[in-house]
Amino acid sequence: MKKSLGPKTLLYPTPVLIVGSYNADGTSNIMTAAWGGIASSKPASIAVSIRSATATHGNIVQRKAFTISIPNESQVLEADYAGLVSGREHNKMAELGLTPTPSELVDAPYASEFPLVLECRLVAVHDLGMHTQFIGEVVDVKADYTILNEGGGSVDVTLLRPIVYAVGTQGYFGLGHHLGKAFEIGREAVEK
Amino acid sequence: MKKSLGPKTLLYPTPVLIVGSYNADGTSNIMTAAWGGIASSKPASIAVSIRSATATHGNIVQRKAFTISIPNESQVLEADYAGLVSGREHNKMAELGLTPTPSELVDAPYASEFPLVLECRLVAVHDLGMHTQFIGEVVDVKADYTILNEGGGSVDVTLLRPIVYAVGTQGYFGLGHHLGKAFEIGREAVEK
Repeated sequence: MKKSLGPKTLLYPTPVLIVGSYNADGTSNIMTAAWGGIASSKPASIAVSIRSATATHGNIVQRKAFTISIPNESQVLEADYAGLVSGREHNKMAELGLTPTPSELVDAPYASEFPLVLECRLVAVHDLGMHTQFIGEVVDVKADYTILNEGGGSVDVTLLRPIVYAVGTQGYFGLGHHLGKAFEIGREAVEK
Repeated sequence: MKKSLGPKTLLYPTPVLIVGSYNADGTSNIMTAAWGGIASSKPASIAVSIRSATATHGNIVQRKAFTISIPNESQVLEADYAGLVSGREHNKMAELGLTPTPSELVDAPYASEFPLVLECRLVAVHDLGMHTQFIGEVVDVKADYTILNEGGGSVDVTLLRPIVYAVGTQGYFGLGHHLGKAFEIGREAVEK
């Protein structure tokens, strides 16, 4: 027996995405977004939804590029702050002591302190009501050496330790214990 | 100093979404997807990306509806299995002992064993290469009473205990410890 809660965006979990963009005057801006995710494997694409009232929205439309950084759980205060105030009144990177770094591949900056960054070229814009969904093709991913797995070819999430966001009660959480490996633990049932 | 990993979908974390749809013969199908997230607050909308080769893809296009269920961490085997085999050859709900339940609001079913379900009406289809992104307007959310917060108006994520998926090394994880409350812990920095 289930209770009806009405039409709400109760999807769990969501990521904490730091969106980097250039303001009209060339300064660097960041904002935090939790409405987004992976959109396609080939070309590697991600989606992030942003309200049209934000500075970031106009920046992305102008420059047709943005970056998505994934903060470590120790950077939760920075992540929350970047979602609380507007880039129109605040130089958030400066206030947080973050280092603006220009992407060499797309027309957008990122803060070098965040351990993982996806450099994205804007490929589609979808008006979905309160939010505009931007689709970014991932041109490159750059990762701190400290979060790479053995071999260095990919990210070890237990070293990255991303923030897990929970809507509704609006809590930030860390990564929990390992439950199993995908495309493997279900195979047991398949092979029965 | 960061290492370039190339154009990959290394975005963390992603959700584990169980997509429910009706096959052409009226039987119920589920598949697991991790490419998706919240797309807009008003109208409440979610995005889920699915390859055109899947049974679910055709089902959603036909019925213009789907459900998204969020499994509990104890249901990780079911979730993995539903991503491993095709609904064309397997009645996954039956094989997993799940109970197909018709949504009364949209033309799609869900498995009543999953604690949270979003009933979605298809409102947009975006071809993004390997994956097609479906945008669903959330018509209603239904939740088990056992996962509701005090007052019963929303979901307590620490009771829901959703699965957190990590791409790259393809691991399933539980929810970790509470890091802070959103729109609150960053305020300290704002008010300085």
